[in-house]
Amino acid sequence: MTTTPLNQLGAADAARRLARRELRAVDLMQACLERIADREPLLRAFVHLDADAALAAARALDAGPVRGPLHGLPLGVKDLFDTHDMPTACGSPIYADPAQRSRSDAAAVALCRAAGAVVVGKTVTTEFATFEAGPTRNPHALDRTPGGSSSGSAAAVADCMLPLAFGTQTAASIVRPAAYCGVVGFKPSFGRVQRAGMKLLSESLDTVGGFARSVDDVALLVSVLTGDALSPSADAAPAGLRIGLFRGPQWALVDHDTEQLWERVIGRAAALAVAGVSTSEVATPSGFDGLVALQSQLMAFEATRSLAHERFHHADRLSRKLTQLLDTGLAVSGTAHNANLIAARQWQRRIDTLFERHDVLIAPSASGEAGLASEGTGDPVFGRAWTLLGLPCLHLPLGVGAHGLPIGLQLVGRPNGDAMLLHMGAWLHPRLKD
Amino acid sequence: MTTTPLNQLGAADAARRLARRELRAVDLMQACLERIADREPLLRAFVHLDADAALAAARALDAGPVRGPLHGLPLGVKDLFDTHDMPTACGSPIYADPAQRSRSDAAAVALCRAAGAVVVGKTVTTEFATFEAGPTRNPHALDRTPGGSSSGSAAAVADCMLPLAFGTQTAASIVRPAAYCGVVGFKPSFGRVQRAGMKLLSESLDTVGGFARSVDDVALLVSVLTGDALSPSADAAPAGLRIGLFRGPQWALVDHDTEQLWERVIGRAAALAVAGVSTSEVATPSGFDGLVALQSQLMAFEATRSLAHERFHHADRLSRKLTQLLDTGLAVSGTAHNANLIAARQWQRRIDTLFERHDVLIAPSASGEAGLASEGTGDPVFGRAWTLLGLPCLHLPLGVGAHGLPIGLQLVGRPNGDAMLLHMGAWLHPRLKD
Repeated sequence: MTTTPLNQLGAADAARRLARRELRAVDLMQACLERIADREPLLRAFVHLDADAALAAARALDAGPVRGPLHGLPLGVKDLFDTHDMPTACGSPIYADPAQRSRSDAAAVALCRAAGAVVVGKTVTTEFATFEAGPTRNPHALDRTPGGSSSGSAAAVADCMLPLAFGTQTAASIVRPAAYCGVVGFKPSFGRVQRAGMKLLSESLDTVGGFARSVDDVALLVSVLTGDALSPSADAAPAGLRIGLFRGPQWALVDHDTEQLWERVIGRAAALAVAGVSTSEVATPSGFDGLVALQSQLMAFEATRSLAHERFHHADRLSRKLTQLLDTGLAVSGTAHNANLIAARQWQRRIDTLFERHDVLIAPSASGEAGLASEGTGDPVFGRAWTLLGLPCLHLPLGVGAHGLPIGLQLVGRPNGDAMLLHMGAWLHPRLKD
Repeated sequence: MTTTPLNQLGAADAARRLARRELRAVDLMQACLERIADREPLLRAFVHLDADAALAAARALDAGPVRGPLHGLPLGVKDLFDTHDMPTACGSPIYADPAQRSRSDAAAVALCRAAGAVVVGKTVTTEFATFEAGPTRNPHALDRTPGGSSSGSAAAVADCMLPLAFGTQTAASIVRPAAYCGVVGFKPSFGRVQRAGMKLLSESLDTVGGFARSVDDVALLVSVLTGDALSPSADAAPAGLRIGLFRGPQWALVDHDTEQLWERVIGRAAALAVAGVSTSEVATPSGFDGLVALQSQLMAFEATRSLAHERFHHADRLSRKLTQLLDTGLAVSGTAHNANLIAARQWQRRIDTLFERHDVLIAPSASGEAGLASEGTGDPVFGRAWTLLGLPCLHLPLGVGAHGLPIGLQLVGRPNGDAMLLHMGAWLHPRLKD
């Protein structure tokens, strides 16, 4: 018998026990709800929670057939996704009516529910997934930010309130909160997951993904969204794997903790080589440093148009930070935006050459540990280029920094190489950890 | 003084007069509403109409400052776009509640309203923009289909009920109804127009565009959505323009009317050459015929996931045609879909070579005239490849066929060459017409 408290069970492990009826969904749910009851007053990960409905749904699953690969798993839904039975506020006072219900579940929500997941509640997002923070705090230190925009999802999973939660990334909104909260975060390739029923911010960047406490766990969640087969076991090294160490143009921003982590990875090259895995440094391609500005301008232009209704009808209820973002977007002409779209596509083609010599890149996820919550949700600069390029990104928590807060690195995969990236991540994660 | 009835005014012409206060918005609106009152019982282009609100909005515009480039123009909105003041049924009985209102306007709606357009009503779409027809009939022959999925928008503009209306295209849902109804239809490059607040069917294909009765008119509408500067006057030939005549792999499906139209275009090559415009036949690239199946499979997979809520909760209220489409999509694995996305991207790169020797392609829009409404909305096969490739497409009505119904051809532009395509279209349209 394991002595792991049920709320600490990983999603894949719990799913196996639930499917074999060795674990009741209601017991798992009860354990998660107890953790939430204990910790939510401090963490504030949820904007809406329905414990009674979650327990009733869990009981119904226990009484019926196994529904699918997520049977009985508690799931947190970022409050950008429509739900037919819970309100969706998008982190904005404009949509804070607690009586609101959508006509349908967003595609991602409907697919997970059909696979047996139970939506426990809606997790805090920053305002329309941009930069104005919500109330959530970092579970490792309550004065610290959990990162954004998927603040509540990352914090809830890190704190073992939930095994799984949805995130979305437009700049670095999955990778950054995963880094600050010390969980696995996965942003699939652009376009792999249908966004229907999600509040769109940026047509060419918004990507649906998720959080869990292991690579296997996040792969289970995302496989339901993408239809990908689950990645194979992490026991076997991906044959002939070539890792590229990509410090990138923002390396000057990483702190001593991240530098030490980087040295650790380099120090393990010999051990990896024994398994047939090569490691080499990757030079930053010429012009790559311009991608941050390109992504920022694309995002601002598209946000300004996507949020046109809110801008015209509710300008007084937008935060100062969002208003600034929208003003930035208004200053970009359609002609300039079109040129930016062309430039982004050219870079997407050009980046393929990086993957001729490497199967996966390792890159910083953030400068280091989470900063003070009073200073905002942190800098998304380490995510912007990868999101612009549409590449799959997998954050791996790898240790703690000077203040005992989580630090880690992200793996970046080749275009649409999501399944392979998850396989490599599952294999690498235990080999790069403390 | 013109004797053109006001409801027949083109959008650009009307906009000029409205901006100069030579025409009152309320008079234009009244003329359109009278045309609607006369013809709507036969055409059934609208699923929701609010004449009083439209007149009130027009009066308010007359009393205030000029709001923007669409000041005072009546606009039809395909019933897939959220509107805060009108219901959105998406062509489905699932969402037919006339009391429903969205929390916000879709991005495209909000941008046009802010530019001064008045939304007259919601126009009929096929069921979730797929293949189950709505009640709309072709204004040129009431037993004929207007095409789909943007059935109501194309019919309303063709019948001079409205100068402008929104369409969306996933396979051929702008180009086909434009062809059958004899109006200009424009599908911008994929990703140019934000889809926020539109019911998404297919993440990698759905594209927002519009209908009007001239290229200048549709350019006016779409410039508000894309932010593009308006195309220059059609008086000057685009310098050194190279036209490629692309019969394509479905040429065997075109009828005698379209063949004759093609011969007419070829016959005008000498006259075009005088203006410095070259014309040459384009061979179909090897493998291009496979794009129809690739587009169909991508669309089916994505529709199955995007409509997951409807599939799980309202299966009994989906049409047989839609159920078949969703079943097709369910049979595609995530791994196969990922391979399809990669194949589509490779084709998007490969197609660039076509535009090394041509600035614009001319291609069939449909086999010929509209078929009987009792036989469905027609075959989207002539649009599928171009939509998959993400290229801008502009349908030009060019004459009538054997039954006196409209026929025409589409211009296909280079990736993100929307502004140039509209310029070329404005110049070519009068030179290719009857």
